[in-house]
Amino acid sequence: MKKIEHLGIAVKNLKDSNVLFEKLLGEGPYKEEEVASEGVRTSFFKTGPNKIELLESLNEEGPIAKFLTKKGEGIHHIAFEVEDIIAEMERLKKEGFQVLGDAPKKGADNKWVVFVHPKSTNGVLIELCQEIN
Amino acid sequence: MKKIEHLGIAVKNLKDSNVLFEKLLGEGPYKEEEVASEGVRTSFFKTGPNKIELLESLNEEGPIAKFLTKKGEGIHHIAFEVEDIIAEMERLKKEGFQVLGDAPKKGADNKWVVFVHPKSTNGVLIELCQEIN
Repeated sequence: MKKIEHLGIAVKNLKDSNVLFEKLLGEGPYKEEEVASEGVRTSFFKTGPNKIELLESLNEEGPIAKFLTKKGEGIHHIAFEVEDIIAEMERLKKEGFQVLGDAPKKGADNKWVVFVHPKSTNGVLIELCQEIN
Repeated sequence: MKKIEHLGIAVKNLKDSNVLFEKLLGEGPYKEEEVASEGVRTSFFKTGPNKIELLESLNEEGPIAKFLTKKGEGIHHIAFEVEDIIAEMERLKKEGFQVLGDAPKKGADNKWVVFVHPKSTNGVLIELCQEIN
C-alpha cells in the first residue's frame, strides 16, 4: 500500500456537502464525476498527497443509498493506492481477506478499483486503486 | 489542512487487529501507546505519508467503547495535520463548525489535538493535529 489515495464519504446532498467541505478544507472540489456503473455522483477535494471523495447516490438501491439508510452520513471507505492491483488482490486473498470480484473494475478518477469486504477487515470497507495508464 | 495525518479505526481487540492490519498493510505497527486521558490503547501503522491508528478502549464508558456499542468496529475519525492548530480552530469556529473544547489537548503520538463534532461535518468526526515541538 503506497498511501491513502482517498477517503470516501457518503453524503445525502452533494451540492450542500461540497459547500461544507470547501469551508472545512479551505478549497473547493477540483472535479465532479458521475460513475453510472456504481450509481453515484462524486466530487474530489485535494488535501496534500491525499484526496477526499464525496459520494451521493443516484438512485435508491445502490451501495451508497443502502449505507445512508443503515448508518447515515459518514466515512464510507478507505482507498489505498497500490503499485500492482492484480498482485495485491491475490496477496490479500491468500492472507484470507474477502476480495470482492475476480478482477478490478473502472472506478472514478481514472482508476482501476477493487474492494475488500468489511467483514474481513474490522468493519472497514477497503478499496485498492491503481491509476489507469 | 496539510494532509490526512492518520485515520483512527475503533477495534474490539488491539492484539488481534494488529495481526490483521499487519497482513493488510504488509508491515506491523511501529508503536503502541496508551492514552490514559482518553481511555484508549492505540497502535500506529505507516502507509506512505499517512498513518493508520487502531484504538481499543481501556474501559466500558469511554468514547471508543460507546462507538463500538453504537456502530461496531470501523473507521472512527479522520485526523488532518495542520500548521497552526489554534488558528485553524478559530477559523473553523467562525465557519460555523462545532469545535470541541476551548484549547488543544495532548493526544497520542506526540501531538496537540482538537476534535470537530460530526454533527457539523456530515457525520465525520474530524481531528486536527499538530506535532508538539
